[in-house]
Amino acid sequence: MRIAVLGTGSVGRALAARFAELGHQVVIGTREPEVTVADGPFAAWAAAHAGVGLATFEDSTQGAEVVVNACAGAVTLVVLARVGPERLAGKVLLDISNPLDHSAGFPPTLSVKDTDSLGEQVQRAFPAARVVKSLNTMNAALMARPTTLAEPTTVFVSGDDAAAKATVTALLTELGHADVLDLGDISTARGPEMYLPLWLRTLGALGTAEFNIKVVR
Amino acid sequence: MRIAVLGTGSVGRALAARFAELGHQVVIGTREPEVTVADGPFAAWAAAHAGVGLATFEDSTQGAEVVVNACAGAVTLVVLARVGPERLAGKVLLDISNPLDHSAGFPPTLSVKDTDSLGEQVQRAFPAARVVKSLNTMNAALMARPTTLAEPTTVFVSGDDAAAKATVTALLTELGHADVLDLGDISTARGPEMYLPLWLRTLGALGTAEFNIKVVR
Repeated sequence: MRIAVLGTGSVGRALAARFAELGHQVVIGTREPEVTVADGPFAAWAAAHAGVGLATFEDSTQGAEVVVNACAGAVTLVVLARVGPERLAGKVLLDISNPLDHSAGFPPTLSVKDTDSLGEQVQRAFPAARVVKSLNTMNAALMARPTTLAEPTTVFVSGDDAAAKATVTALLTELGHADVLDLGDISTARGPEMYLPLWLRTLGALGTAEFNIKVVR
Repeated sequence: MRIAVLGTGSVGRALAARFAELGHQVVIGTREPEVTVADGPFAAWAAAHAGVGLATFEDSTQGAEVVVNACAGAVTLVVLARVGPERLAGKVLLDISNPLDHSAGFPPTLSVKDTDSLGEQVQRAFPAARVVKSLNTMNAALMARPTTLAEPTTVFVSGDDAAAKATVTALLTELGHADVLDLGDISTARGPEMYLPLWLRTLGALGTAEFNIKVVR
């Protein structure tokens, strides 16, 4: 499958590397590729992952069946606007972002919540994209390889398009996610996004991000 | 231990019955005991749990070492004001309430969130009470008897008073909670309270409230 991963941070790199390892054709999208390759840590990572392409946000989505939004919540709508509605139309848009507001220090608050969500904002802004919210409830390493935990845990999916959720669910299963829980339409993204404050306090209590929740039933 | 349970709803009844079963002296607090005993379902429950006392909110706390707030979030501060700061002073106040706002239908939203929590509001309103937020992340039956699930799950505690959290943790362990995770001071109650939207969507997806999360690490 051809996958565009928007964002060069820890989430983008972890998923791009893992999807490439699983045999997918992956291109990372960034604002200015020449600036990104001049970045030491990214250059070192890219050298170790020669199979992953790098292009502008716009070009990365060329021919992609799935576009992964791995950008920070604060820039998500700006980056997707740069890609543009035409390039996103009809595509599965896997949105991993969290609407974290760091302006008041740690822990961050949420810039949208309760009566709306970033997942819904993305869907409203790009009505022809097939948005699926998922993976935002764990750290980057566990998104890409959840089997490093001692037992299977849960990942949630929210979206209006059943076929898009099936595509994402298949990708999640490839990554190693053994319990994919479909919460319903894109408005249910409010649940996983509002879980972030509990994730942050659990991080503080455990002193590690190497944890995830399992819905025991 | 002498335990006052404020509230005659499903949470109050489940915990009162279970604490009594475990050998504690339990009194349920209600606004007007004569009205409560005239209620058919409550009367039937009370007949089956003769060891549990019933008194006014104020009287129920007489001699109690632990006061459990099992009232709805919308009436929590009103009920606690009725009990009064003098009766709560020095006592462990186990707050289970969720700040659910049902005014716009289902699913409810939160009346306080993100930069504050109901747990903090209770602690600020009654500074001499030793508030511990816990148990609000699961349904009443599982609060009282978590071992009905196939494997151990997690319950969170938040509070400023370490000794009060130790008292609550001991009670939670008696109930069968095998993984009690101390998140920190009372401001960390924002995490478990903001989990409710995810709990509500998971309820919708599973079609049952018989689930709880386990923090796998």
